[in-house]
Amino acid sequence: MVDTGFCAFKSDPQAVAESARAARAEIRAGRFTRDTASVASGAVQGNVVILPADWAADFQRFCYLNPKPCPLIGVSEPGDPYLPMLGEDIDIRSDVGAYRVFENGKAVDEVFDVTDIWRDDLVTFILGCSFSFEEALMQAGLPLRHVEMDVVVPMYTTNIQTKPAGPYRGCTVTSMRPYTPVDAIRAIQITSRFPNVHGAPLHFGDPSLIGVDDIDKPEFGGERVDFHEGEVPVFWACGVTPQVVMESAKPPFCITHKPGRMLVTDRMNAEMAVL
Amino acid sequence: MVDTGFCAFKSDPQAVAESARAARAEIRAGRFTRDTASVASGAVQGNVVILPADWAADFQRFCYLNPKPCPLIGVSEPGDPYLPMLGEDIDIRSDVGAYRVFENGKAVDEVFDVTDIWRDDLVTFILGCSFSFEEALMQAGLPLRHVEMDVVVPMYTTNIQTKPAGPYRGCTVTSMRPYTPVDAIRAIQITSRFPNVHGAPLHFGDPSLIGVDDIDKPEFGGERVDFHEGEVPVFWACGVTPQVVMESAKPPFCITHKPGRMLVTDRMNAEMAVL
Repeated sequence: MVDTGFCAFKSDPQAVAESARAARAEIRAGRFTRDTASVASGAVQGNVVILPADWAADFQRFCYLNPKPCPLIGVSEPGDPYLPMLGEDIDIRSDVGAYRVFENGKAVDEVFDVTDIWRDDLVTFILGCSFSFEEALMQAGLPLRHVEMDVVVPMYTTNIQTKPAGPYRGCTVTSMRPYTPVDAIRAIQITSRFPNVHGAPLHFGDPSLIGVDDIDKPEFGGERVDFHEGEVPVFWACGVTPQVVMESAKPPFCITHKPGRMLVTDRMNAEMAVL
Repeated sequence: MVDTGFCAFKSDPQAVAESARAARAEIRAGRFTRDTASVASGAVQGNVVILPADWAADFQRFCYLNPKPCPLIGVSEPGDPYLPMLGEDIDIRSDVGAYRVFENGKAVDEVFDVTDIWRDDLVTFILGCSFSFEEALMQAGLPLRHVEMDVVVPMYTTNIQTKPAGPYRGCTVTSMRPYTPVDAIRAIQITSRFPNVHGAPLHFGDPSLIGVDDIDKPEFGGERVDFHEGEVPVFWACGVTPQVVMESAKPPFCITHKPGRMLVTDRMNAEMAVL
């Protein structure tokens, strides 16, 4: 059974891990095909990037150079589909909410399992995800408009360049949440405590300053949200960034998660706080 | 001799205290009658509020309830003009850059010494000052426009209500610094580490949302500053707030510092960081 609401035990590592394992079992069995946002609350969810070994070293350096969009919380041995540091039973070939398959930088397929296209040279990278800091924002009483409206958080490509590493380069993708300035200041404080899950925002206010022309036209399956009186958009770096980067890097083969359909890990969101 | 530039030894408590004592000696002797902003760098400077004992308890509670405008860093025994917790030789009657004298809530005089009007029932409150967090901002490479332009930081009365205590109530005064959103986010992080010297900002962006109608018309002797491309105003609570509060509280007698002419203490700015 999948926990789709708030978990009363989300500060209990055992309960969180159990709830995460239950969610993965459902996903693995193909019985859960929605967004993972409200699944296994308290558990860290991750963005997924899977690359051939000879394309992996540059990407690992890319993550190091761009910790805000690409905060690395797990990496596998080449060819090894398991990620014991994130959960004993995780099989990355079947346990992600949904996958996108890229060939030469082009998304060519969306699937629920990649076991039959797995290769012995693949390296898995797991990047922290904003769901973790959203838990902290909600616990602090800050509103999350996309949660209130029950839509996927709006995401936008910006003109904020990543630092290049080998073939990897491109613009930073952001997720956006509307806040009053008072709440935005609090949200900046709170998310600063979570550098492993994107950390503090990259921008607030005028979207055109970061190359976002129409705030009502998000990308990557994100949906528009309402702004209340006095609210400004606040933009955080987003783990979808690598998917844009792949378009120019053009690795011959790459697998990512589908935005919003993440890897549910056994780690606790609360573990991600550095202060 | 007064240290009017950056002190190379400002992380040395002894050197900072010596430089502060030298500054106070000049002020006490009436030989220093300018702004204290660039004096004894590294040393905490304080806003000053002096009240009769029977008006002091409510004000102490007011500070407790309003830690952002009124972060209390020192308080005296009734009638005692000394503040040993802030510097061995401090005599509050002569050591403040300049004083304003209030009667029944009206500023009636500005003087350089209050020894001849001192009373045995007066209690001194010292509130942290933004000079301390400005040192941290500059060390982080963030610009301070009013320093670049060599003017007094612009200050504004807002419509942000303080929490009342006894007769004390009124609007929060703010100081304002222009920043790009990226720098503002960093400035929020940095000043969050300094709750004893006003802490994180209260507002950024549209000034009219906090009742500031004309950003080019600061009050309390502050001066207007330029905005560069893409910068927004960021507003911090200001220790001048009690002077506005006195106008409505109307204590029969009150002494404050003159804005910009502070008490220079022996404490180090670096001590004020909580993280």
